[in-house]
Amino acid sequence: MFKHLTLSPGVNVKLKDFDPGDTHGWEEADAKRELEELREKMEKLQDVFYASGKYALLIVLQAMDAGGKDGTVKHVMGGFNPSGCSVISFKAPSPEELSHDFLWRVHKAVPPRGHIGIFNRSHYEDVLVVRVLNLVPEKVWRERYDQINTFEKMLCENNVIVLKFFLHISKKEQADRFRDRLADPKKIWKFNPGDLEMREKWGDFMEAYDDVLERCTTAHAPWTIVPADVKWFRNLVVARRIVETVDALDLKYPPPAPGVEKIEIV
Amino acid sequence: MFKHLTLSPGVNVKLKDFDPGDTHGWEEADAKRELEELREKMEKLQDVFYASGKYALLIVLQAMDAGGKDGTVKHVMGGFNPSGCSVISFKAPSPEELSHDFLWRVHKAVPPRGHIGIFNRSHYEDVLVVRVLNLVPEKVWRERYDQINTFEKMLCENNVIVLKFFLHISKKEQADRFRDRLADPKKIWKFNPGDLEMREKWGDFMEAYDDVLERCTTAHAPWTIVPADVKWFRNLVVARRIVETVDALDLKYPPPAPGVEKIEIV
Repeated sequence: MFKHLTLSPGVNVKLKDFDPGDTHGWEEADAKRELEELREKMEKLQDVFYASGKYALLIVLQAMDAGGKDGTVKHVMGGFNPSGCSVISFKAPSPEELSHDFLWRVHKAVPPRGHIGIFNRSHYEDVLVVRVLNLVPEKVWRERYDQINTFEKMLCENNVIVLKFFLHISKKEQADRFRDRLADPKKIWKFNPGDLEMREKWGDFMEAYDDVLERCTTAHAPWTIVPADVKWFRNLVVARRIVETVDALDLKYPPPAPGVEKIEIV
Repeated sequence: MFKHLTLSPGVNVKLKDFDPGDTHGWEEADAKRELEELREKMEKLQDVFYASGKYALLIVLQAMDAGGKDGTVKHVMGGFNPSGCSVISFKAPSPEELSHDFLWRVHKAVPPRGHIGIFNRSHYEDVLVVRVLNLVPEKVWRERYDQINTFEKMLCENNVIVLKFFLHISKKEQADRFRDRLADPKKIWKFNPGDLEMREKWGDFMEAYDDVLERCTTAHAPWTIVPADVKWFRNLVVARRIVETVDALDLKYPPPAPGVEKIEIV
């Protein structure tokens, strides 16, 4: 389901060919009911995922500002047991982080086996905002696509499952959400005037995203382009991909420790 | 509400005076409805807690094995938005951790302002299991009560709110839960034969807890003794104390950044 939203390696990607407002014929009430069911499945799957301790799950969320990263975490990942799930929000790097290679802080944050880690922004900013704002020479960011692919391949070979979601909103939808934020006393504090400078470079960002989605879609860690103008459809696509991925692992509870079956409690 | 379960500094504590099966006259259905309401309040309070960025909240959970730490995280803290909430489970210390003072790994894990951190076990194990199993000389663990109090005072003075819960179950309830684990294929893998050795030292642990609860109940970070034989009552007590604590802060959303109110989105 929604299989064509997950990219295949080697395919040319142009975001303008993907409709951010698409809902694949779903109705809101059905999608919300389905999300509830998926959240219940996620809870069950997470229990055996944690118990088996065989894989780690790394979920990467990328989007333009107001693209719905926080909302996805709240409405989709809110279904996970917090004991086995952590969210890491990558901000502008600190001086210490900048004195290391760009993957250093990312590697430290990779979840251990049995756990789910959610990256709210990620190492992909190092080929997105860093590229658009010319924060490093072109030669440096161009080399990063391969470095990222190699890094993610190593993770994958070590049982870290990497799911990457680009939450795709239209420029018009961003404007609507910015206006909502400005009108809401509980949200206006979040508004950073710098977000408008990024908005002015929308075209440059889409071009940078085209390259990310194309060059960093590998067999081991493909990107999923999530139509994200409609929030309930965005949640449905993300939840379904997570559930299908973990379900396919067909994990089992581990056997008891030796001798445990004969224990009697007194 | 449940105020007498939160200890006062200087009061003599004997756990045998507290009934682990107490439900203060509550009925299950009422308690569960109340928990749902508290979870909704927690969600709202967490939003402004995060936005204001003024305080951090550190929740310490201690209990005997099968005391309900994991269940409390799932059923109470599951109401938090995962973006601003992390759970840290302290296991037996690693060689690196052991080569530092006992508070080193704990300090690193303290949540930043705006965030909620949940300690599943904590620095208190260094005056509990460490004491009962004689892992360090008595002189060393005896000095730790004051070290802990001083550390927590510093946190408090730096806007870290510390809520400490002892989930108090009876020895009989532990036996029932151990038997349930042994009978459930989804839970038997968790059973560690070492847990039985701890159970044999129940009396020593209760004595060590009496000392922890008495010596480390300070004005800035008192302990709450949670009657925990009845899971729905345990959840209610913990949720209510969290909600009452955060509610009393009377936090406000921060004002918008300068100039933001005049912005028009084009």
